[in-house]
Amino acid sequence: MRFFSDNAAAAHPAVLDALAASNRLDTAYDGDEWSLKLDAAFSDLFETQVRALWVTTGTAANCLALAALCPPYGGIVCHRDAHIENDEAGAPGFYTNGAKLILVNGPGAKLAPDAVSEAIDRIRKDVHQVQARALSITNATEYGLAYSAAEVGALGETAKRHALRVHMDGARFANAIVSTGASPADVTWRAGVEALSFGFVKNGGLNAEALILFDTELADEVLVRRKRAGHLLSKGRMLAAQILALLEGDLWLANARAANAAAQTLAKAAGDRLVYPVEANEVFLKVSAEEAARLRSQGFDFYDWGAGEIRLVTSWDQDGEDVEKLAAAVGSL
Amino acid sequence: MRFFSDNAAAAHPAVLDALAASNRLDTAYDGDEWSLKLDAAFSDLFETQVRALWVTTGTAANCLALAALCPPYGGIVCHRDAHIENDEAGAPGFYTNGAKLILVNGPGAKLAPDAVSEAIDRIRKDVHQVQARALSITNATEYGLAYSAAEVGALGETAKRHALRVHMDGARFANAIVSTGASPADVTWRAGVEALSFGFVKNGGLNAEALILFDTELADEVLVRRKRAGHLLSKGRMLAAQILALLEGDLWLANARAANAAAQTLAKAAGDRLVYPVEANEVFLKVSAEEAARLRSQGFDFYDWGAGEIRLVTSWDQDGEDVEKLAAAVGSL
Amino acid sequence: MRFFSDNAAAAHPAVLDALAASNRLDTAYDGDEWSLKLDAAFSDLFETQVRALWVTTGTAANCLALAALCPPYGGIVCHRDAHIENDEAGAPGFYTNGAKLILVNGPGAKLAPDAVSEAIDRIRKDVHQVQARALSITNATEYGLAYSAAEVGALGETAKRHALRVHMDGARFANAIVSTGASPADVTWRAGVEALSFGFVKNGGLNAEALILFDTELADEVLVRRKRAGHLLSKGRMLAAQILALLEGDLWLANARAANAAAQTLAKAAGDRLVYPVEANEVFLKVSAEEAARLRSQGFDFYDWGAGEIRLVTSWDQDGEDVEKLAAAVGSL
Amino acid sequence: MRFFSDNAAAAHPAVLDALAASNRLDTAYDGDEWSLKLDAAFSDLFETQVRALWVTTGTAANCLALAALCPPYGGIVCHRDAHIENDEAGAPGFYTNGAKLILVNGPGAKLAPDAVSEAIDRIRKDVHQVQARALSITNATEYGLAYSAAEVGALGETAKRHALRVHMDGARFANAIVSTGASPADVTWRAGVEALSFGFVKNGGLNAEALILFDTELADEVLVRRKRAGHLLSKGRMLAAQILALLEGDLWLANARAANAAAQTLAKAAGDRLVYPVEANEVFLKVSAEEAARLRSQGFDFYDWGAGEIRLVTSWDQDGEDVEKLAAAVGSL
Repeated sequence: MRFFSDNAAAAHPAVLDALAASNRLDTAYDGDEWSLKLDAAFSDLFETQVRALWVTTGTAANCLALAALCPPYGGIVCHRDAHIENDEAGAPGFYTNGAKLILVNGPGAKLAPDAVSEAIDRIRKDVHQVQARALSITNATEYGLAYSAAEVGALGETAKRHALRVHMDGARFANAIVSTGASPADVTWRAGVEALSFGFVKNGGLNAEALILFDTELADEVLVRRKRAGHLLSKGRMLAAQILALLEGDLWLANARAANAAAQTLAKAAGDRLVYPVEANEVFLKVSAEEAARLRSQGFDFYDWGAGEIRLVTSWDQDGEDVEKLAAAVGSL
Repeated sequence: MRFFSDNAAAAHPAVLDALAASNRLDTAYDGDEWSLKLDAAFSDLFETQVRALWVTTGTAANCLALAALCPPYGGIVCHRDAHIENDEAGAPGFYTNGAKLILVNGPGAKLAPDAVSEAIDRIRKDVHQVQARALSITNATEYGLAYSAAEVGALGETAKRHALRVHMDGARFANAIVSTGASPADVTWRAGVEALSFGFVKNGGLNAEALILFDTELADEVLVRRKRAGHLLSKGRMLAAQILALLEGDLWLANARAANAAAQTLAKAAGDRLVYPVEANEVFLKVSAEEAARLRSQGFDFYDWGAGEIRLVTSWDQDGEDVEKLAAAVGSL
Repeated sequence: MRFFSDNAAAAHPAVLDALAASNRLDTAYDGDEWSLKLDAAFSDLFETQVRALWVTTGTAANCLALAALCPPYGGIVCHRDAHIENDEAGAPGFYTNGAKLILVNGPGAKLAPDAVSEAIDRIRKDVHQVQARALSITNATEYGLAYSAAEVGALGETAKRHALRVHMDGARFANAIVSTGASPADVTWRAGVEALSFGFVKNGGLNAEALILFDTELADEVLVRRKRAGHLLSKGRMLAAQILALLEGDLWLANARAANAAAQTLAKAAGDRLVYPVEANEVFLKVSAEEAARLRSQGFDFYDWGAGEIRLVTSWDQDGEDVEKLAAAVGSL
Repeated sequence: MRFFSDNAAAAHPAVLDALAASNRLDTAYDGDEWSLKLDAAFSDLFETQVRALWVTTGTAANCLALAALCPPYGGIVCHRDAHIENDEAGAPGFYTNGAKLILVNGPGAKLAPDAVSEAIDRIRKDVHQVQARALSITNATEYGLAYSAAEVGALGETAKRHALRVHMDGARFANAIVSTGASPADVTWRAGVEALSFGFVKNGGLNAEALILFDTELADEVLVRRKRAGHLLSKGRMLAAQILALLEGDLWLANARAANAAAQTLAKAAGDRLVYPVEANEVFLKVSAEEAARLRSQGFDFYDWGAGEIRLVTSWDQDGEDVEKLAAAVGSL
């Protein structure tokens, strides 16, 4: 019974069906009928004209966006626990050609406007120190917290005041949307976000993520950078088809709802053990090494998360019975 | 009736089946049961211990290899018509952080040892000029010529004499193997090749290519670079499964045989119009603009290739009747 | 009697005097009284508002400019014999993070508008090929030819039509100005040049070159890039003082006049042996190996330049008698 | 009366004399008689065979070394207050092409072996996190503390255990040597240091620093990188001459002794106000804003260093009377 990650889950059957349906000769790269539908599909979803590109990983989406938003000699403000800092092997440095991540603290891996401002104010405004040029917000955060539209808006205001471009890492964007009930538009471009990594792989996709450019003038550069990074696939139609399948009938929301609901079940059972409020599909618990061992001995699979803590992640296809069993097991620790 | 590219063709049904079969929870990234089989599968094929990694594009495979083989301040000798020079948006410069492509001429986009040596001899051996550090051979070439094992061996010798590391861009490696009958081992590591981009996307794959490291000590670095470039997919099992499906029962050879045979049919009909001998699945013809228009009016789709020439490419799934029709049409121009 | 290079000559006494005069405590970096005078001094000279920065090498000046004018994924059109292609160890690739040099042929290392246009027209306008974004003109050229204002203007027009930014490598800018009699303004910004590497080291300077930004909005970025490249010296006043000393009383023009005159003396003696017209301070001669040996046996020092050619370079301080002796020796070959 | 920095001080007269003496035609770049003496001079000083290169800035020396010691995808462990982190505009990211600085805390900007080990132990040993590959030690530290040979040795051991290459930023190496009395050899290569940025600009030089390679096999690569970064000056003899002048008769030690002695005078007067022990030529004092204003009104020039602290730096040529006056003024605050 695996609760260790949502990025290793199976793809949704509708995704595989779409992939099979697109398996015929068409124009290579992104000139095919599926890829050409992405701009319109996401423009609808976000209630404004956007440009939308497929890529295969969140790291690629994040770093293509950051390379377009921040010059090599600039700094990107992000949380110390952000994926771009901790889990992408320095990819932002590679893609931007050396931009610096300026790290900010905050509970639950969440950025607060004051903390962002303080980090920027600490930088001397001369050529000897790297000046901040971009802000990257992870929503939902690495610890499963979701930003309200107002919270992103406050960060967007802060960014504007400091002339920072704004990126959102939405590897679990679907889970955040379901959690807050915010409209996709309100929590992104209306709040100042200029580029969004819209995750589908953790949401029932196979290997397709979307990079949404609210600043559509970035598109020409990003398209070139995607090719240059080796991320322009020949049969891109099969990535576009996956994304379209997940947008169809709001399947992406249904999948996120299922994952979030499973996490809520676990959260309720966990009580005081919760390290953070559960707002998406991740549950962090205070659990001793012995207790963790006990859970594992009952067949539950998950990651330790530092000393005395464990992480449980639920997926779109998490088995309901498994969840109930784990909830019970946690409750009776 | 499309003859414009083999990289836009459909994926082979066996590939989609394999993909569906691997669609279940497993370890993320490349720790799953399919990915773990790649080293052994390719070690068998190449009759020596290799490390084998999946990536999603030939550009990624080429550039990850080159970045490991050539320092930022070095030069990579390749043909002026090589894909890395003309069709990868400067990706080698991005991946290597600025290495220079040292361009060599030669008919049919084929490298000859003498031309390689001359290019290197022209470089002053000082710190003011970029020194050659690697050689990249495209097999089959951009114009559809295949290297014999002896030809690669001669290039390998030349490389060794000049202390160059050797990469092979095998986007159409299968077609070359089928054409020459050389063993995969003879035309690669036994001839001095240290890293091979082994193409599957033009051969019935969906979005999986293999990067084969004959110098297995390169693997640690390349694995890190793959992650850092955003090319470590979460559900890598689905890339590995595609590759394994194409290796299974030598499907990759059968597919290449079909494509090459279609090209031979066209070549026979073309007679004096052939620009190059047809040794793989590409056919370049001298055809006037009017003649090209006539072919198009009969429903054939293909690229012009400079003034007075066209390029026909055949795929693993090229329809036999279409090929006969095109052969007839070309014959009666 | 050394005729091999102007970049190894002594510094002019006025330069050393200025250096000694500036040898007292002042603000570090470029906030001192000498550095602060550069903008005004060069704005006067160029009859328009410019920003002027000191650097220590022509390579640094060229590459800082190119990095500001061309994105990592762009191409820089230049002559195949340009210094940035042949003699800077790939520095443009390092500074721009991988931009591609797009090479153009032309006699005497001179660029012609048609050749530039042809090179650009050959590039497919898609994401697979690197698109040209900048043009770099060397004036005087590597073979000692000087551009007229009209010639630069025609290149500037061509660049504008293709949306290229324009850089001029003026390692021997002084020699070109003296040669054509063009005003510094006419041959640069009035002709479309946006950044100029203004050479002083080959003109009596010790280790100071000037980077002139006619597009003054580039300054903020270039200042940061200069620091980031390790080119912001603590005691910058001593670089600024050198440049000011050479501008004072048009010493830079007097020095170039002396060097050019010496080259003319050699040119007259050379007659039919001249490979190119002599328009600056470089003289290329057709001379057999035996003849070259004869000259060397008479005490003349110079470089061979390919088979059957030699290069003679004259400096601001070239001894007049040496020049006469060499002219006589060449005349009597 | 300026106490704000040692890098803006005048050059020593012997340095200017040497510069004038070398002002005659010689081979360009680093083939001249002065440059050729550097290896031997520093090999003598360090009692082992080294390779020694001139550069013009400490940033260039640091970053050329780091680029040779750490791959683009590696991490460099250094103190959070190190110059490479705070004052080089991200130059390490530019030179290494994106390596990450892994920051360690410690009083007085000093690294302790345990803190280094802890920072490394926190890194998961997988491809998702950047692995440490190098260690950079600043001696004297940014807060004027000097490492004993034993302290560097302990760090060298730690580095070895974790397979890190070791660099020392010796912008104030002379002050550290004078302070501890350690031999140059003991505090560098015998303690595990493989490359040293040996500062001369803060020590009476004009614009010459030395990069010392104890691992002499690094030299070929570093020489190419120096050229590629635009740091190979035409008249390099004038940099070499400066360095040789400062080595001559141990002038570098005399200069450092003078600066350190001035700092000691201030330290004695400061008593409890000292933030750190004074071991080189920097003095950090707890001084209120009003007190700082009072000092400034008496004609003393210096930097504030955060709230309630000021930094005083003494130079090789600090006027003795000025020092006495400042000591008195501090004493009577």
